[in-house]
Amino acid sequence: MASTDDGFRPLDEKSLIEYIKATPSLASKLGNHLDDLQIKEVGDGNLNFVYIVVGKSGSFVIKQALPYIRCIGESWPMTKERAYFEATALKQHGHLCPDHVPEVYHFDRAMCVIGMHYLEPPHIILRKGLIAGIEYPLLAEHISEYMARTLFFTSLLHHTTTEHKRAVSEFCGNMELCRHTAQVVFSDPYKVSQYNHWTSPYLDRDAEAVREDNALKLEVAELKSMFGERAQALIHGDLHTGSVMVTHDSTQVIDPEFAYYGPMGFDIGAFLGNLILAFFAQDGHANQGNDRKTYKDWILRTIEDTWNLFHKKFTALWDENRDGSGEAYLPAIYNNPELQLLVKQKFMKDLFHDTLGFGAAKMIRRIVGVAHVEDFESITDAGIRADCERQALNFAKVLLKKRREFQAINEVVSAIQKLQS
Amino acid sequence: MASTDDGFRPLDEKSLIEYIKATPSLASKLGNHLDDLQIKEVGDGNLNFVYIVVGKSGSFVIKQALPYIRCIGESWPMTKERAYFEATALKQHGHLCPDHVPEVYHFDRAMCVIGMHYLEPPHIILRKGLIAGIEYPLLAEHISEYMARTLFFTSLLHHTTTEHKRAVSEFCGNMELCRHTAQVVFSDPYKVSQYNHWTSPYLDRDAEAVREDNALKLEVAELKSMFGERAQALIHGDLHTGSVMVTHDSTQVIDPEFAYYGPMGFDIGAFLGNLILAFFAQDGHANQGNDRKTYKDWILRTIEDTWNLFHKKFTALWDENRDGSGEAYLPAIYNNPELQLLVKQKFMKDLFHDTLGFGAAKMIRRIVGVAHVEDFESITDAGIRADCERQALNFAKVLLKKRREFQAINEVVSAIQKLQS
Repeated sequence: MASTDDGFRPLDEKSLIEYIKATPSLASKLGNHLDDLQIKEVGDGNLNFVYIVVGKSGSFVIKQALPYIRCIGESWPMTKERAYFEATALKQHGHLCPDHVPEVYHFDRAMCVIGMHYLEPPHIILRKGLIAGIEYPLLAEHISEYMARTLFFTSLLHHTTTEHKRAVSEFCGNMELCRHTAQVVFSDPYKVSQYNHWTSPYLDRDAEAVREDNALKLEVAELKSMFGERAQALIHGDLHTGSVMVTHDSTQVIDPEFAYYGPMGFDIGAFLGNLILAFFAQDGHANQGNDRKTYKDWILRTIEDTWNLFHKKFTALWDENRDGSGEAYLPAIYNNPELQLLVKQKFMKDLFHDTLGFGAAKMIRRIVGVAHVEDFESITDAGIRADCERQALNFAKVLLKKRREFQAINEVVSAIQKLQS
Repeated sequence: MASTDDGFRPLDEKSLIEYIKATPSLASKLGNHLDDLQIKEVGDGNLNFVYIVVGKSGSFVIKQALPYIRCIGESWPMTKERAYFEATALKQHGHLCPDHVPEVYHFDRAMCVIGMHYLEPPHIILRKGLIAGIEYPLLAEHISEYMARTLFFTSLLHHTTTEHKRAVSEFCGNMELCRHTAQVVFSDPYKVSQYNHWTSPYLDRDAEAVREDNALKLEVAELKSMFGERAQALIHGDLHTGSVMVTHDSTQVIDPEFAYYGPMGFDIGAFLGNLILAFFAQDGHANQGNDRKTYKDWILRTIEDTWNLFHKKFTALWDENRDGSGEAYLPAIYNNPELQLLVKQKFMKDLFHDTLGFGAAKMIRRIVGVAHVEDFESITDAGIRADCERQALNFAKVLLKKRREFQAINEVVSAIQKLQS
């Protein structure tokens, strides 16, 4: 396996062992016992190679980015520099929220290799848990904590202008991944595009209707501009339920390779939008033994709790830090209680509407765009799958177009319930 | 005059001659005739030193940035790196709109020296022309051309995501000047601040009212966030009437040292807001020979024409380039006439409201903030000056708070006229 000029070579299970031996920060994590290592390639995502490395005295995960998108192949190139932004975001978000971000042990920029904490079983990808119908009682509490802390502390509510511009500038370097997101989320679903697909022929007319919906495209343009222009906070950039690993009492956010300074609502919306997709997929997973009714109620409760807890935690951080370094709302100007309240209400209302808009856009692209979600894909009966998807798609269209009419998350949940009654 | 470690030394009229002799790109502009040069320091701005250099066979202007704000002194440091961003913006805007931006002949990053085209007499600073009551029949035509071209071609209407992020990243380096603007425009006027001043005691209560106006401060917070987060286009960053030089048939935009990727409305608003200030100052310049009534009508007409011509030119550029490289509105999605119209209407309406908000904020800061405008300062009778300023301030407050109620620029002009009747 020849290395390229820039010192990059793709690893395999064999060369990985040599790599670990030559890397003290990794070898030491295994207590320098490098015999009988168990190495397993587990990358089930769309983009990268992921190896679990387990020795007698320790373990870690090795993630390597290759210069293309794994699930499509070399025909869709994508910079391996994304590993640098992933490692940087993991470290920065991990510093702000260590309970919910795996620790980075090692980063090799030339090799695009990240060594990080292995999230042991029973950790599974949240999306798989949602398909299996498993409740995670602490999920809303944990993910709201992660979002509140990472978004608050990387915004101008905490940053000075100077810090903010410096950080924004660095993450502008992740432009290729931003461009990819802009394309697959805000463009491809709204036009004829090579990689788009859907449950055909059932949804042919639905996909066409998306491409012909002027009101929808007008709103999507606004969200796309916000995505391209607004450096509000260091967002994860891909915070769907496949980027979260869970157990009954642990919630860990992984895979921030799309991280950049963008609108906060893009992260919150990604998470909530994917929970809504999970909700609409449940009827496809129901069987005689389990009608999933109780589980659907739990998903709706989790949607409601996630936003409400986020709201509570984020505004609490704002209160705690209102005499801090953040330059958005200087205490000398905004120090009266009435104005504090007004300012927060306005900020959170705008963020709520951004969240609904981005969440809806993320739902639509998973039904008629290039990359679908296992929640629906695992429903084998295409007719049933299409019915679930159509419900989700129709709800997402309403949510995107009418998002400013929703005043609180319980109204969104009520609107979902109404569709099902 | 010792040079510092980084190769920087402040020039004076004597050392400038040596500098020119050692710099072929400058010497050649004088036809290499370096005897009998006439050198005059004319920096009447707040920040820099500016020399006019005239020889027998040519001329240019030399501008040098010093590491502090000239009008305040070394007690208010400001990075001399601003010269780099000024030179870069002059070149980029000049490339897009050569008719209205002086050509850059020379840039020396270490010395923070820009050599550029000398705008010969009868060019004067527009603000001085407005105080003198001189009409410029082509002003609206020219400045709208400048704004339309510079803003359109540096936005995602023309840029790919990749180009845009790269450009945004570079101008994030101008963070110190962004921070200065954020402070003096969006913060200082709304709190007690060392350098704030106003026509006292006449406006004491008015200045206090600004600091106590919760509704105003709520709106200013939104504009400040937009200024700090939204990388919409490469804006001039300080486009008031002191940054424009004019003759009867020439309009030249200078001094873009505050340039960065920010909201388009900040530039358009700066220009229109300063025209409105000029309007309200006219009563202070009226005398028995000239009641300035006709001139006030011309200013109002120019305000109206500037926006309307900008609107026309900007949307025309959009039409001409709709199959171009810009990634905001892909032709495959937005190619039907009805949607084209909807998208443009929404964009221009939002931009109009941003413009009014930023324009109003720029007016307020010139009356109760640190840096005032000669339009008012040159009115010697403090009582008359205060009356003019109060009218402008009150109008600005309404404009900022009620900006979304204005549908077109003629409604803004009518509101101004109503105040005077």
